[in-house]
Amino acid sequence: MKQQTIFNEDFLLQNKTAVQLYHQYAADLPIIDYHNHLSPQAIADDKVFENITQVWLGGDHYKWRAMRALGVDEKFISGNTSDKEKFLAWATCVPNTVRNPLFHWSHLELKKIFGVEEYLNEHNATEIFERCNSILKEKKVSPQFIFNYFKVEMCGTTDDPCDNLEFHRTIRTTNKKDITNSGIYAGVSPQIFPSFRPDKAFNIENKIAFFQFIDALEIASNQKITSFETLLSAFEKRIDFFHQNGCRVSDHGLTTMPTKFEMNTALRNNFSTFLIDRHHSKSFPDADAFVGTLLQALCKMYHARDWVQQFHLGAIRNNNTRLTTRMGSDVGVDSVGDWSQAVNLSRFLDALDVNDELAKTILYNLNPADNELMATMAANFNDGTRAGKIQYGAAWWFLDQKDGIEKQLNDLSNMGIVSTFVGMTTDSRSFLSYPRHEYFRRILCNLFATDMENGLLPNDEKWMGEIIRNISYFNAKKYFAL
Amino acid sequence: MKQQTIFNEDFLLQNKTAVQLYHQYAADLPIIDYHNHLSPQAIADDKVFENITQVWLGGDHYKWRAMRALGVDEKFISGNTSDKEKFLAWATCVPNTVRNPLFHWSHLELKKIFGVEEYLNEHNATEIFERCNSILKEKKVSPQFIFNYFKVEMCGTTDDPCDNLEFHRTIRTTNKKDITNSGIYAGVSPQIFPSFRPDKAFNIENKIAFFQFIDALEIASNQKITSFETLLSAFEKRIDFFHQNGCRVSDHGLTTMPTKFEMNTALRNNFSTFLIDRHHSKSFPDADAFVGTLLQALCKMYHARDWVQQFHLGAIRNNNTRLTTRMGSDVGVDSVGDWSQAVNLSRFLDALDVNDELAKTILYNLNPADNELMATMAANFNDGTRAGKIQYGAAWWFLDQKDGIEKQLNDLSNMGIVSTFVGMTTDSRSFLSYPRHEYFRRILCNLFATDMENGLLPNDEKWMGEIIRNISYFNAKKYFAL
Amino acid sequence: MKQQTIFNEDFLLQNKTAVQLYHQYAADLPIIDYHNHLSPQAIADDKVFENITQVWLGGDHYKWRAMRALGVDEKFISGNTSDKEKFLAWATCVPNTVRNPLFHWSHLELKKIFGVEEYLNEHNATEIFERCNSILKEKKVSPQFIFNYFKVEMCGTTDDPCDNLEFHRTIRTTNKKDITNSGIYAGVSPQIFPSFRPDKAFNIENKIAFFQFIDALEIASNQKITSFETLLSAFEKRIDFFHQNGCRVSDHGLTTMPTKFEMNTALRNNFSTFLIDRHHSKSFPDADAFVGTLLQALCKMYHARDWVQQFHLGAIRNNNTRLTTRMGSDVGVDSVGDWSQAVNLSRFLDALDVNDELAKTILYNLNPADNELMATMAANFNDGTRAGKIQYGAAWWFLDQKDGIEKQLNDLSNMGIVSTFVGMTTDSRSFLSYPRHEYFRRILCNLFATDMENGLLPNDEKWMGEIIRNISYFNAKKYFAL
Repeated sequence: MKQQTIFNEDFLLQNKTAVQLYHQYAADLPIIDYHNHLSPQAIADDKVFENITQVWLGGDHYKWRAMRALGVDEKFISGNTSDKEKFLAWATCVPNTVRNPLFHWSHLELKKIFGVEEYLNEHNATEIFERCNSILKEKKVSPQFIFNYFKVEMCGTTDDPCDNLEFHRTIRTTNKKDITNSGIYAGVSPQIFPSFRPDKAFNIENKIAFFQFIDALEIASNQKITSFETLLSAFEKRIDFFHQNGCRVSDHGLTTMPTKFEMNTALRNNFSTFLIDRHHSKSFPDADAFVGTLLQALCKMYHARDWVQQFHLGAIRNNNTRLTTRMGSDVGVDSVGDWSQAVNLSRFLDALDVNDELAKTILYNLNPADNELMATMAANFNDGTRAGKIQYGAAWWFLDQKDGIEKQLNDLSNMGIVSTFVGMTTDSRSFLSYPRHEYFRRILCNLFATDMENGLLPNDEKWMGEIIRNISYFNAKKYFAL
Repeated sequence: MKQQTIFNEDFLLQNKTAVQLYHQYAADLPIIDYHNHLSPQAIADDKVFENITQVWLGGDHYKWRAMRALGVDEKFISGNTSDKEKFLAWATCVPNTVRNPLFHWSHLELKKIFGVEEYLNEHNATEIFERCNSILKEKKVSPQFIFNYFKVEMCGTTDDPCDNLEFHRTIRTTNKKDITNSGIYAGVSPQIFPSFRPDKAFNIENKIAFFQFIDALEIASNQKITSFETLLSAFEKRIDFFHQNGCRVSDHGLTTMPTKFEMNTALRNNFSTFLIDRHHSKSFPDADAFVGTLLQALCKMYHARDWVQQFHLGAIRNNNTRLTTRMGSDVGVDSVGDWSQAVNLSRFLDALDVNDELAKTILYNLNPADNELMATMAANFNDGTRAGKIQYGAAWWFLDQKDGIEKQLNDLSNMGIVSTFVGMTTDSRSFLSYPRHEYFRRILCNLFATDMENGLLPNDEKWMGEIIRNISYFNAKKYFAL
Repeated sequence: MKQQTIFNEDFLLQNKTAVQLYHQYAADLPIIDYHNHLSPQAIADDKVFENITQVWLGGDHYKWRAMRALGVDEKFISGNTSDKEKFLAWATCVPNTVRNPLFHWSHLELKKIFGVEEYLNEHNATEIFERCNSILKEKKVSPQFIFNYFKVEMCGTTDDPCDNLEFHRTIRTTNKKDITNSGIYAGVSPQIFPSFRPDKAFNIENKIAFFQFIDALEIASNQKITSFETLLSAFEKRIDFFHQNGCRVSDHGLTTMPTKFEMNTALRNNFSTFLIDRHHSKSFPDADAFVGTLLQALCKMYHARDWVQQFHLGAIRNNNTRLTTRMGSDVGVDSVGDWSQAVNLSRFLDALDVNDELAKTILYNLNPADNELMATMAANFNDGTRAGKIQYGAAWWFLDQKDGIEKQLNDLSNMGIVSTFVGMTTDSRSFLSYPRHEYFRRILCNLFATDMENGLLPNDEKWMGEIIRNISYFNAKKYFAL
């Protein structure tokens, strides 16, 4: 085969079968990006991006983290230097990011839309900065332009239970869906759905933040919250509201699953008192029981509505107090945790399953040492009602790179049934991250193809191609009922 | 090399050296399957199997689990549909099990004995069902037929301490061993040995099950159990009885090793009272000390008789209450746990070693994140009395697949001395699982061969071939004193 | 490519690009061995080694461990058999150490200096024993000879805070440094620096050992230690003394990081009493707080002097009481532990960083399941002041082999910025271990080259070559301010 590069059409495809599988079966499929952190307001506004720094570096804590590691002063990262200076600072870093996914991602992102086919560095940075900015203007690059460019059929944002979803409603009135006869999405505007992420409710140990949330929830639900029962009522109203606005997915970021799923009368009374005495200094005596009981209740509400519930487990966040204090969360100082996961997860899922109230579920882990645990745990709760009911989710965050994706696919293959996998989602904050679906599909095709060439899989292109297409697109379409 | 498939003689052998090593050194050796869960009764009865479903799907929870993940209704798995319907349901699943070991195992199992060289699917299922059933009848396929077909020289079943071993005694009177001059087993009937597995004794937290076991042990040992001392006497009698019946191996399934190895007088008195007051609701106050003290005592009995002791650590079992309640244990709802293992394991083994009472030991782990821990822990207690006294055991259960086997072999190689390894055992409940030894040997040869071709190992076929033969057969023969 | 072997110049270089990268960019660079356990006295004495057993097997617990696993009697390992008998015993083992790093290391060690290009075994052992001994005599092989042979530019030993550093001072007066115009070391004598390793101070739970240390520290610092404050004073004096003697590096061997960093007045008073009542049986009530508070204080002293601090986390040591009692520590009975690391490590580093008192730091882990955790944790505390301020350290001890080195490099690449990596250090007790730098560099070049040939990295030899050179030498030179 000819020499490959990031800019080559056969990038990551290491043999002829891989080339064939990718281009014939995977490349042209639309994208279902069921979980990300894109801004609904930006989508609703659909403004043309001003410059490449804003759309590319603005909220990208992966790049910030790399810049700090390479000795770049914070003023060029989150400070008030100009957008051009920030771009140049990043460009100077890029040649030294080799072997980190940022090196591939960055060049794939510049190649798409902008057509840049050079390796970015300090020498060509100014020219590429200007070229990209011209293209943004010339092509009128906006969120909807990007969705269309990448054939994004569905995009699931992440939303607070108290969000009024106004931007989602705006989007729904302006978008139209265009499905061809073949059942494959073919154009114009994706479906944008909210996801329900009630994480703030679980942070009862931080009283100030917790009561800010309770106050907001009271207003959003028009429900006075004076007890655990009224808290659940308020949540149910919001879940209904989200449901009416197209939401069919929830998400939860936890270190580990809670261990207790019941609050006895005393504890419930205690919670009522806690709600009233909010200005007193006492903390709630059993945060674990509160979280567990609340989360079980929410999960039953999801199940009743046939939602998908997601659990992102095992991140250790905001490790650096200096940067967190100054900048807030999601600023590039999070990392992989190592809590025990199996027992809690088993009991939590079983407590729902035992009464047949376990919704479709996707489990994600951040520590790859937990891959096998997660893949095997998911499979314990498949009940034969639908293929792939309980999913072991895509390689997430730090694991969203070639080795991590391959390991997730291999572990899922060995410990579960990869053919039922709903595949990739970006989990990204950036509109330019969509090449990660292409990245995933190339890696997926290459894995299957290498097995085919080594005699580990039948050398049957049609058979394998169909599985590739299911993992790339059709499984998710069915799972999320699109 | 020519295109390989599962049905090809060079399956899994990815270069010429691998082909040479496997066919010249490994392929023809007999099988020592020192740990499995085959039924002694079935072996003693030696009945011809009625149909392929019974021998192939009957107790195979790996396949059940895959079927549930693929959305198959439980009635086709464990329900009362016909054997043919169950076979067809499984056949329909097979094409979607690609990349799971079931896909390889299933086709290797059908290829051996039945000569099936097609990929099973819903289209050929009926025809293959009938073909296999004809062959079962025609060849009179029974347990002994299968042992002979696969050249099984030794087969170690897993038995309750209270078992009267009647089937084992029947087997021993009817079997005869046939060893050629070369010292290699050459035929007819394997040695079938019981293994001593006292797990039920450790479950003191489940009073009903525990006392059922105590009652059975009293009867089996003809020993009244009124104290910890009489409990040990009863066990010692059973161990002697097992020893007289050929047993030289014990096995223990634990989540982690216990931490305390002594019961003081108060606790021993407490245990005596516990035995008397069995109908009261009190639980035993220190289950860990009970398990640790009992297990240490048993281990000393094993050492005194030069037995091999096995520890299977880290499974989280019976996660799904709905299925466990209906079907019992071992029904496909177990998975990989993530308990801390190192400290407990170190102290347990050291407490035996310090008085030179540590028997030959095999350590197995289910979470591959523990591989390096286990491999290095085993090596701490080699004392120079025999090569490979303390073994890091073969890839087990979920890890018994190409990646898992390779990782176990590589981790053992890097952290220990792979040339002393006693190799593969099926740990299976199915008589058709014997191709897994072939699977293991092919992977083993391919690893060594790839290192040879890459210059990481001497390109000396005789040298490497001898190590391959030792790992495949001779190390186990010596270790288990066959 | 031609058939490779351990003795071949292209060993471990699996394609043309790898050959080119290694020989053109990495092979000729000097060695900066910033952390090892070589004997300062042996360096100062610079005596010619008497025989190959003394220099090669004397303190090598890796080899001892392998011999025990291969059933060799302890008398040939640590007993009083002759040096020749011990060599023959080891030689007999070597052919069965294949796939363990000892097999590669041993032959690389014999190839260098001794020119042995045969695989050692029982047949050629006597001849090779004599040949090596002749060469030792003939070439006058001494520590300085070995440094010169391997182009060791800097060597960092590991020293007790109470050490008077007399040997280091002797070395400094006799050595001279020879740096060519290019800035690359070119000769004669390396810089030998002590490292500050205060582990004994953390072992407050072992009163006898602790007070032996306190007594020694009082003498060394000429500071009466009657309180926590005077303990810190004593330490600061020693740190200043080490600094005056060229030390710029500290090291700490801990299972996990401590969790508390403050001792209140009561606890400090308690510590003063503890110091006085040393002959009473009471143990100190909060070892964790003592260790955490002391270690934080030490880390601030390191930071004030711009030292590098190292943390080696996660070893479980002295597992075998029989051998430890007889032989002491570091005798081949240590292994990989599995404690939770992330939360403690995060809080410890953050407590220093929050006041900008976090020194340059290198984190090492022994359990490869923690690689990703460690690599991502390090990156949380890069503050842009210098490239690679917080390092995820080289594969250590059991992980210092091809798979372990590759995994460390890949995980660091994926989770961090490998181009800033300070690279390899032997951590060895043997003067013959220097080929491990060559081993590391070959693996490093092979990884980059394979990525280049697969299109995952730019096929730009100069660009990649420069990164290789930085990781092999220049990053460490800058980091340790040489």
